[in-house]
Amino acid sequence: MRVLIMGAAGMVGQKLLSRLQNADTGLGNISKIYLHDMVPANTASWSGASEVLVGNIAEAAEMQKLADLKPDVIFHLASIVSGEAELEFSKGWQVNMAGSWAFLESLRQHHDDSGGTYVPKIIFTSSIAVFGPPFPDKISDEFLCAPQTSYGAQKAIVEMLIADYSRKGYIEGISIRLPTICVRPGKPNLAASSFFSGIIREPLNGVEAILPVSDDVRHWHASPRSAARFLTHAASLDLSQLGSRRSLNMPGVSCTVAEQIEALRNVAGSDVVALIKPQLEERIVKIVAGWPRNFDTARAHALGFESEASFEEIIKIYLEDDLPKP
Amino acid sequence: MRVLIMGAAGMVGQKLLSRLQNADTGLGNISKIYLHDMVPANTASWSGASEVLVGNIAEAAEMQKLADLKPDVIFHLASIVSGEAELEFSKGWQVNMAGSWAFLESLRQHHDDSGGTYVPKIIFTSSIAVFGPPFPDKISDEFLCAPQTSYGAQKAIVEMLIADYSRKGYIEGISIRLPTICVRPGKPNLAASSFFSGIIREPLNGVEAILPVSDDVRHWHASPRSAARFLTHAASLDLSQLGSRRSLNMPGVSCTVAEQIEALRNVAGSDVVALIKPQLEERIVKIVAGWPRNFDTARAHALGFESEASFEEIIKIYLEDDLPKP
Repeated sequence: MRVLIMGAAGMVGQKLLSRLQNADTGLGNISKIYLHDMVPANTASWSGASEVLVGNIAEAAEMQKLADLKPDVIFHLASIVSGEAELEFSKGWQVNMAGSWAFLESLRQHHDDSGGTYVPKIIFTSSIAVFGPPFPDKISDEFLCAPQTSYGAQKAIVEMLIADYSRKGYIEGISIRLPTICVRPGKPNLAASSFFSGIIREPLNGVEAILPVSDDVRHWHASPRSAARFLTHAASLDLSQLGSRRSLNMPGVSCTVAEQIEALRNVAGSDVVALIKPQLEERIVKIVAGWPRNFDTARAHALGFESEASFEEIIKIYLEDDLPKP
Repeated sequence: MRVLIMGAAGMVGQKLLSRLQNADTGLGNISKIYLHDMVPANTASWSGASEVLVGNIAEAAEMQKLADLKPDVIFHLASIVSGEAELEFSKGWQVNMAGSWAFLESLRQHHDDSGGTYVPKIIFTSSIAVFGPPFPDKISDEFLCAPQTSYGAQKAIVEMLIADYSRKGYIEGISIRLPTICVRPGKPNLAASSFFSGIIREPLNGVEAILPVSDDVRHWHASPRSAARFLTHAASLDLSQLGSRRSLNMPGVSCTVAEQIEALRNVAGSDVVALIKPQLEERIVKIVAGWPRNFDTARAHALGFESEASFEEIIKIYLEDDLPKP
């Protein structure tokens, strides 16, 4: 089996590669992994055959090249992030929508050329950014997509494409809507959600962290380990059981910032918590007010997707998997 | 004010033109109407200035030409129909999705070139085909889009585009999801929904009509007159009040085929009803089983959209507006 990871250089792509190496994912024997991204992906965690590919998913010719590899399983994690898609409107649509459509069209051509025998499995990482307020207390599996960002709209549209190409039998697709991934390893980034990880990660590394929102903000989290597990679990499923609803809200932990902080106190003590410095930032407050707080992920649970049960567990996974060793 | 109607040669386009001529639509003074379609639109019902344009909305250059007209109000009714989009997959996406995206991009360019002063109003006709089963008894304004056809997926995607371009302030858009339009004047067509009109229209014209489904099938209807009124009402609204949810389920009449037939009996008598010949057609039965049956259109009602209150009223509108005069 040949596997393609698009967006392989990113944090989730790397977690996925490591999981494919180290866990029994039920995917069967992988003969080769193609790792595609804008920059060369690190292959250190993969001992089998691999090929590193570099290119821009906004370009139809690049998408044709990837489809020509005729991968059996495709993990499509590639996109520009929310903030960039909002600032660079045209680029966002080209990269996050047009590129994916071009890719699906190239795959469909191979499906047709093969007499219908080539039906690649595609696992697309979507996002809870497909939802917009007003929200119910818990977002159900039947709640409408009403994105508040171009990024969310682009994700929702690629979900639609994947559902329709799957319905027609050209691919076997699934879109998994990831919670906010927490605790992200590494440096803070410019994402408005960065602080959700930062207020845990920085104090655990002895560094102060700004909390830019009120501590009663509730949000929806899962660990990087869960993200990789969602991806391989999705790839191991018989996707025909999804019927025509190919987009799934992934499980997560719903908790307030105050609950995040109490979990940190339980795991690491009050001295660590003291490194969190509340300092309201109106721009972030406003953005976060439009984000989902909680989900009822009945469908995903029924299909065997599982996340952490508590935010403490999420912190412990960071300590196990990602805390820099001294 | 300059108005553009895309899909102007179609039945709803023609009803709209007639309504713009004959009713007080609250739209203000129309200096010119551009009528665009694949074939020349009839201008007989419009006494003001008009220009008939012929072209293919799948072509970006054609969409650029239409945007270059810088219309103030755009009624976008153009698409290939469900059956054709299902049979000709690639054509469906090019016409029903790519064309609309190219059009929005050209309008955005004019918005930018105008320093942000050009913000056209767009009323896009979407469809209840954006929904797929399983359905609740009544589909609410918060029910997910899960189309069962490429046509439905394409409509749902253009809705997303219109919502995002509106959110960014490039356009002022609304997508109105029309019920099945009944009683359609003219000849039967190949649409699976054709019989809903046929079992009323043909008997009223003294002709037999096949009923290909069981008479307990429930569906969602509005008259052509309502369709035209939805469009002009949408154009008269301050669309900023929609916030970021720019897609609205239009009101309609939910009734079973048996109730349709009883309404026909009340209006036209049992001899007319006797011209309906039940003859199950499995292909149609199967398609129709996947269609919505009823809606709670609270948002549309609150915004002043109104349909008929009964199927009898729908039949009477056919008699008034469309029954061929002997």
